[in-house]
Amino acid sequence: CSMLLTVPPGKDGLGIIRDGAFAVSGGRITDAGLSGEILYAHKGCRRIDAGGRLVMPGFVDCHTHLIHGGDRVDEMFLRLSGKSYLEILAAGGGIHSTVAATAAASDEELRASAAERLLRMAAHGTTTVEVKSGYGSDADSEERILRCAGALSGGGGRTETSVLPAVVPTYLGAHSIPPGAGREELLEALTGPALTRMRSRAEFCDVFCEEGAFSLEESRRILTAAAEAGFKLKIHAGQFTAAGGAAMAAELGAASADHLEHLQQGEAAAMAAAGTAGVLLPGVSFFLGSPYADGRALADAGVRVALATDYNTGSCPSYSMPFMISLAVSGCGLNIVEAVRAATTNAAAAICRQEGCGSLVPGMNADFIFLDLERPEEIPYYVGTNPVVKAFRGGIEII
Amino acid sequence: CSMLLTVPPGKDGLGIIRDGAFAVSGGRITDAGLSGEILYAHKGCRRIDAGGRLVMPGFVDCHTHLIHGGDRVDEMFLRLSGKSYLEILAAGGGIHSTVAATAAASDEELRASAAERLLRMAAHGTTTVEVKSGYGSDADSEERILRCAGALSGGGGRTETSVLPAVVPTYLGAHSIPPGAGREELLEALTGPALTRMRSRAEFCDVFCEEGAFSLEESRRILTAAAEAGFKLKIHAGQFTAAGGAAMAAELGAASADHLEHLQQGEAAAMAAAGTAGVLLPGVSFFLGSPYADGRALADAGVRVALATDYNTGSCPSYSMPFMISLAVSGCGLNIVEAVRAATTNAAAAICRQEGCGSLVPGMNADFIFLDLERPEEIPYYVGTNPVVKAFRGGIEII
Repeated sequence: CSMLLTVPPGKDGLGIIRDGAFAVSGGRITDAGLSGEILYAHKGCRRIDAGGRLVMPGFVDCHTHLIHGGDRVDEMFLRLSGKSYLEILAAGGGIHSTVAATAAASDEELRASAAERLLRMAAHGTTTVEVKSGYGSDADSEERILRCAGALSGGGGRTETSVLPAVVPTYLGAHSIPPGAGREELLEALTGPALTRMRSRAEFCDVFCEEGAFSLEESRRILTAAAEAGFKLKIHAGQFTAAGGAAMAAELGAASADHLEHLQQGEAAAMAAAGTAGVLLPGVSFFLGSPYADGRALADAGVRVALATDYNTGSCPSYSMPFMISLAVSGCGLNIVEAVRAATTNAAAAICRQEGCGSLVPGMNADFIFLDLERPEEIPYYVGTNPVVKAFRGGIEII
Repeated sequence: CSMLLTVPPGKDGLGIIRDGAFAVSGGRITDAGLSGEILYAHKGCRRIDAGGRLVMPGFVDCHTHLIHGGDRVDEMFLRLSGKSYLEILAAGGGIHSTVAATAAASDEELRASAAERLLRMAAHGTTTVEVKSGYGSDADSEERILRCAGALSGGGGRTETSVLPAVVPTYLGAHSIPPGAGREELLEALTGPALTRMRSRAEFCDVFCEEGAFSLEESRRILTAAAEAGFKLKIHAGQFTAAGGAAMAAELGAASADHLEHLQQGEAAAMAAAGTAGVLLPGVSFFLGSPYADGRALADAGVRVALATDYNTGSCPSYSMPFMISLAVSGCGLNIVEAVRAATTNAAAAICRQEGCGSLVPGMNADFIFLDLERPEEIPYYVGTNPVVKAFRGGIEII
């Protein structure tokens, strides 16, 4: 290809190779370098010509709420017409409507709609997707969602007709407070034996730490129990208020703290010191018209900054990581190197996959995409446009 | 298809037909209605099954600066890093850099790069594109750009490999003031015999009426001469200041006044009374971080509101009309019916093609698209995502 971005993990740049190529065997990158050298060293292998296009790692969408019934399209129009959150709830909107619609959907409906969404993400260049539960109302319904996530990645992620992006499941039992729930009862359910059951279906445990959801101390109690049950940790922190969730994530050694629109002083430094990734979700800020996270300050503090769509039916129904790169640059103050690393290797780090995907150096999964562009700066520039023309997972063409 | 939007001209709704179909002959719609009836009436014809997708008219992108050399990617990053307009100019940015890059490009380079852009627009559902000159420095270089526009629509818009969207050329000689230009000399050149030459290559004449470009009185002089030379009229009005250009457009019977971020009192009413379309360009507001036009107020005043990308290399390099629909809804206050009509039949009206394209009623061009959606509200909802899976021009598949 005319320009290859290898995006090596643990370094600063994009690993640009002009007139670059790489070799794939067994679904992994085995060699990368100048076209002439790679083609010479691997004579006789089948060749895929990117046709002068930009080639880079597939995007890692490291924070999504992919699996749900129903949609909240009408809620968007109510909100834009000036309706308040309470009026929207009264009109049947809000997270509880998604919980109800999810309960009403059959297993097969949940799986099929999520698979369709994965294909739309693939069409925009995403090859790995973190998927949270959280629209269940109890342990059984939460487990059903995680089972669905497992079904999406089963059989190598193949449906009858397609190979899907890879799926990484996260248990987010602590997403919302069910109406009329007893608080202590709820916390016992979230920290009790159900955790062990969920652990067999999810690698990460996440908590929505926010006013109106789980307090800092409740979040600590849940995450501590989850760590004891063997989960790696994540947290929704600082979306609407600076409650200290990001510093606690760092203290607990969480893989990531996500949102970060509002932070207390010192939280960024704590995350940097602990190696907790900071996941920006600028699509939510765009969709809700709320403030963007200060990605510039996080990057300057040394935080490993990652990026995700936060795909969900209420506050950001976007499938496009290229659009998130536009918003990260225009809204969060990242430069192009930071934004591309945030959408690839740093997003992989946020799901503890930095040695598996998000880069095109030897040993990594052969998850790569062709873009109808000449250089990475053009991804945010051609805003709202999908520049992705092909995507491969493990060396297999998926779109 | 499961839902067909016929978007009839001159009416208010979207002309929704559930389980609808239409018949095409000679590149035009000959019949539209319920699937059962249409299929019965046209037995034996070749059938295209939209597979349960949303079907609607192809988008009409009624304001673009498609033809240019070079790009201004680096200028975006300079701006985002806080550089002033003057610093950007000093670093080689700004419109004059595009004029120079356009002059440096060969005819074939200009044509090929514009054809590529048209294909990217088609991939996002656009089937008709208005194309302005304006990056020339004199009559000869302006005519070269209009010749290029003509070449793009020549041969039925076919390249060796593709059918392109339809192209409607506009002469925008009065786009910027060349450095060191004598003002009166410039105006004489823009109102003199060159107009007749341009008229054979362009149907519309446009003026950039703005502080730093052409004053209201200069714009009036140019547009009056253009009308005498047989042009239909357009104007860039109110992008940065409310100079009265929209009211003048109404007074001169212009087809459209475009931008409209800043209006004087009474201008919307004047446009409504004159039937001058108001073209919103919200991509520019998004890209520059500047205020959105008040589409709500324009629609409430009875203005025929249209929508376009304003594709250009400096202030909005987006190819996507679906993204513009998102911004029109979230930024400009349009409802979904208004936003879809703005991107189709009203955009056709802004280029005097309302009886030719932008609708799927009998007599119209068979320019239509399939979207991977169930209903039109989902176009703005799945923001930043390209929902278009197929596009047809004159009944021929172009993507």
